[in-house]
Amino acid sequence: MYANDGFRELQRPECLHLLASAPVGRIVHTRHALPAVLPVNFSLDGDGAVVLRTSASSELVRAIDGAVVAFEADEMDAATRAGWSVVVTGAASVVTDAAEHERLTRSGPRSWVPAPREVFVRIEPELVTGRELVGGTLRPAAARWP
Amino acid sequence: MYANDGFRELQRPECLHLLASAPVGRIVHTRHALPAVLPVNFSLDGDGAVVLRTSASSELVRAIDGAVVAFEADEMDAATRAGWSVVVTGAASVVTDAAEHERLTRSGPRSWVPAPREVFVRIEPELVTGRELVGGTLRPAAARWP
Repeated sequence: MYANDGFRELQRPECLHLLASAPVGRIVHTRHALPAVLPVNFSLDGDGAVVLRTSASSELVRAIDGAVVAFEADEMDAATRAGWSVVVTGAASVVTDAAEHERLTRSGPRSWVPAPREVFVRIEPELVTGRELVGGTLRPAAARWP
Repeated sequence: MYANDGFRELQRPECLHLLASAPVGRIVHTRHALPAVLPVNFSLDGDGAVVLRTSASSELVRAIDGAVVAFEADEMDAATRAGWSVVVTGAASVVTDAAEHERLTRSGPRSWVPAPREVFVRIEPELVTGRELVGGTLRPAAARWP
C-alpha cells in the first residue's frame, strides 16, 4: 500500500471479500531475474490462501514453487475512475500432500486449459492489502462495508 | 512467455495494438525486496513506450525510477475462457527533459487522482510479449490479425 496517493486502504476482510468475487488474478514473480506477471484463474481457500491449478510441467510452477510471490486482482472502470485492487503476498508452494490434492480436486479451481498432469499451487496470505478509488476521489470514511 | 501452456504467442505489433486498447494496466516492480503490483492508467507513446503520470512525491516513483519493471494489461472473460495479456518489460525512468515533459502534458495520460506536482514515467519497450487464449483452447493459426 502506498500512502497518500489518493486511494482508500482496505482492511483484510474487505480484501478477501473482493478477491473472492474476481474470476481472474495475476501472479507476479521473478523469471530469469526479471519481473514477470501472468493472468490466471484461481480460487480462495478457507484461510484466504490463493489456489492455482496448472500443468505439473509448466514453467510457472518451476518459477514460483518455494518463492515469495504477489497475487493481484482488480476491477477498474476507466469511465468512472472507480475501482479496487487487492494484493496477496506470500510463499507459493506446490501442494504435495495427497489428501490435500484430493480435496482441491473437488473444491479448488478448474483449469482453463486442462493438462494431462496437473498440480495445485498455494499462495499463503501472509500479507493482504487493498485499495479503493471511487470516482477519482477518496471514498468517504462512511463505508458500505460491514 | 511460457512455452507449451496452451496459449498462442502474440507478436510485437499485435501486442502494442491490444495494449493501446486497454484503459488500465499494472506496474510490476519490487518494493522492500518483495514483488509488488499496482494498477494505473497509462498511455502508449509513439515508440511503444508505456507512459504513466503520477505525483512527483509518490512512493511508486521512488520504487521504480531507474529500475527494470514489467507493465501488464489484459482482457480476460471467465465465461468464455478467452482473452489476451500483454507485458512490456524495460527500464522505468522519470521524464526530466522539460520539452518532453511539456509534450507529454499535452499528449500523455491524464491523472485519475491529480496531485499538485506530477511527473511522467516512461517504461522502455525493451521486451514486448503477449499471449492469447480463445475459448480455453489454442486459437487456430489462421488469425484475424493483419
